[in-house]
Amino acid sequence: MIDRPQAAALDAADPLARLRDQFAIPPGVIYLDGNSLGVLPKTAAARVQQVVQQEWGEGLIRSWNSAGWMALPQRVGDKIGHLIGAAAGEVVAADSTSVNLFKVLSAALTICKADAPQKKRIVSERSNFPTDLYIAEAVAREQGFELVLAEWAEIPALLDGRCAVLMLTQVNYRTGRMHDMAALTKAAHAAGALTIWDLAHSAGAIPVDLNGADADFAIGCGYKYLNGGPGAPAFVWVHPRHVDRFWQPLAGWIGHAAPFEFTPGYRPAAGIARYLCGTPSVIGLAALECGVDTVLAAEPLGGMAALRKKSLALTRQFAEHVSAVCPSLTLASPAEDAQRGSQVCFSHPTAGYAMVQALIARGVIGDFRAPDILRFGFTPLYLRHVDVFDAAEHLRAVIDTEAWRRPEFNQRNAVT
Amino acid sequence: MIDRPQAAALDAADPLARLRDQFAIPPGVIYLDGNSLGVLPKTAAARVQQVVQQEWGEGLIRSWNSAGWMALPQRVGDKIGHLIGAAAGEVVAADSTSVNLFKVLSAALTICKADAPQKKRIVSERSNFPTDLYIAEAVAREQGFELVLAEWAEIPALLDGRCAVLMLTQVNYRTGRMHDMAALTKAAHAAGALTIWDLAHSAGAIPVDLNGADADFAIGCGYKYLNGGPGAPAFVWVHPRHVDRFWQPLAGWIGHAAPFEFTPGYRPAAGIARYLCGTPSVIGLAALECGVDTVLAAEPLGGMAALRKKSLALTRQFAEHVSAVCPSLTLASPAEDAQRGSQVCFSHPTAGYAMVQALIARGVIGDFRAPDILRFGFTPLYLRHVDVFDAAEHLRAVIDTEAWRRPEFNQRNAVT
Repeated sequence: MIDRPQAAALDAADPLARLRDQFAIPPGVIYLDGNSLGVLPKTAAARVQQVVQQEWGEGLIRSWNSAGWMALPQRVGDKIGHLIGAAAGEVVAADSTSVNLFKVLSAALTICKADAPQKKRIVSERSNFPTDLYIAEAVAREQGFELVLAEWAEIPALLDGRCAVLMLTQVNYRTGRMHDMAALTKAAHAAGALTIWDLAHSAGAIPVDLNGADADFAIGCGYKYLNGGPGAPAFVWVHPRHVDRFWQPLAGWIGHAAPFEFTPGYRPAAGIARYLCGTPSVIGLAALECGVDTVLAAEPLGGMAALRKKSLALTRQFAEHVSAVCPSLTLASPAEDAQRGSQVCFSHPTAGYAMVQALIARGVIGDFRAPDILRFGFTPLYLRHVDVFDAAEHLRAVIDTEAWRRPEFNQRNAVT
Repeated sequence: MIDRPQAAALDAADPLARLRDQFAIPPGVIYLDGNSLGVLPKTAAARVQQVVQQEWGEGLIRSWNSAGWMALPQRVGDKIGHLIGAAAGEVVAADSTSVNLFKVLSAALTICKADAPQKKRIVSERSNFPTDLYIAEAVAREQGFELVLAEWAEIPALLDGRCAVLMLTQVNYRTGRMHDMAALTKAAHAAGALTIWDLAHSAGAIPVDLNGADADFAIGCGYKYLNGGPGAPAFVWVHPRHVDRFWQPLAGWIGHAAPFEFTPGYRPAAGIARYLCGTPSVIGLAALECGVDTVLAAEPLGGMAALRKKSLALTRQFAEHVSAVCPSLTLASPAEDAQRGSQVCFSHPTAGYAMVQALIARGVIGDFRAPDILRFGFTPLYLRHVDVFDAAEHLRAVIDTEAWRRPEFNQRNAVT
């Protein structure tokens, strides 16, 4: 277990330390919830104000051209692509993660119907994020497929002649456990199945190489490790070998080959632009771009590889420290670095919710995930080793003093 | 034709005149494009800044509770509902118009399959806004329905035993021609068909009474007459008799009965909340709320009825003035008040695009809609009779001096 002077020494030697200056972190807060909503980049307030006052207020409708609004989904998409192993022109930022999953799952099933009509299963993990399972349930029902849910260890055995699509979130939202994208994609392809990867807890958190892994489809979230703001637009990637084969059913005008011809028949745009649908959320995309830029700022310092190294050091430190000082908690995340995303979770049979609330009252913000998970996300862009030390000690104090028993910490809110 | 002193006298007597003070209108601009992107409300810049700096920056994840983010889709939806004849709890603001159309069309076809499986036609207007037709084309293809497009006058004859759904935009985006919602809904119901109304050019522009017309489904746009900002969230309404019958396939977690239980099986929320999908766009909804509030500010002054009266006076004045002074243009909007939305369009066989560009260079912002339409929207919240007079005179000057022939006005941009 690292003591506080050792943590301070690690921070002093940290080549990424100055990236923290990019963020407006409230005084007194240790923020371990960047996997739910990333911290505000300092540039975002001014940029959003520019969009509102100059581009909307003064430019008005002219800003679709003069301020480059039309190109925002592609411009922001290209920046995200750089973080996930996608080439320029392969990603767009648009809509929500759920809506984008609907698009790629619909497209994937259309491909399966054409290429392997006997395959009728969508395979996923039972503990996948619910919205992924709900969308898959709906699409499976509409299209005559079966959604098969399995535990982590059972998934490889399900990659057989019946599997049309393997749909997984790379890093589990509750436990932080990470799938091996390249290996599972290879196994899925060997069984003739397509893969859809949800990068909600991957993009900006761990190195991702979609083309290197030969994945088929990917989607992800803008407001977690990409720091894009509450409800930021999400993103979508489709491998070039699939992107022009079929269109997806959310065939809105912005995905048309010539949106301003205003002609009645749908002709999909070439490439990933056909995965756009309605008019882009300009203010949301502007804030998201500021967030993505905070991650790209690590490029001259080693990029995602350097961020991953620091992230592992932070999560290892927290897991070891809390395991040592909070014996009533059980580590729910993998102890092995290679299997762990950028988060550490503990379970407690009854008091997890209250413990998280008591921690928040002390300025240490994590979250609770039903039924029993205390969840802590570690964003290496702005977290320090001393923050990790202090957060672990706060958690120890909450438990040792039984502060979590106070009634106000046991009252449930809508969101934690 | 009204002269300028008469126009000024009308403005002086206008009970709605002070509503203009709500907006940040750039000096020297006469804005006749509020049907494409509404003008910036003065409150929006400060409100967006509050969301970014305080709610996101300081509140962070806690703001889902403390700043009421979770309730935004319903809160903004209720305000919009007030403008379109929907009761509280019947509307949510979310996603884009295209995505919302996909939801309601999917739901409507599910109802049709259950109640009248022999009906296989979706009827719409050939000149409907393309995104509506594209989405309908995609849904029809996926679900085994036929999209039948007709001219305005042919629609009543298509409301027969084969028609499952009548899907119309109430006010045509190019011509401003307005359908009689109540009469067409009645005729559709008599034929056993459901109705979907796109209120993109209606909400905030004309009085709408969805419950009074006994409509079935409606969707609409946040960034036109509702002044919600570029790419603002859209809205969706479903009649209470249908809303709980089936779910729609964009079954995301925010539409779940208990989103924070994180359970695998989808259980739709009661009521219109099941038409939500992914995490709400918080910044976009905050700006949209400011825009909707600018329309609600007319309530003590007579509300939508008073706005409609002024809108008709403005559009009538412009149609008469331009018709009198620009003989090379042909009126493309209905001359009759009852058939006209809040816009006036003219056609010119060859030079419409260039004329609009030359007008914009003079500070009069309208837009061009291919192939031949000069389109002018009139937002009675901020337009004056003298603006209408001046705009018409600018158009006369552009044509009389042949200013539109200059090369820079004949160079096409991506968006006009």
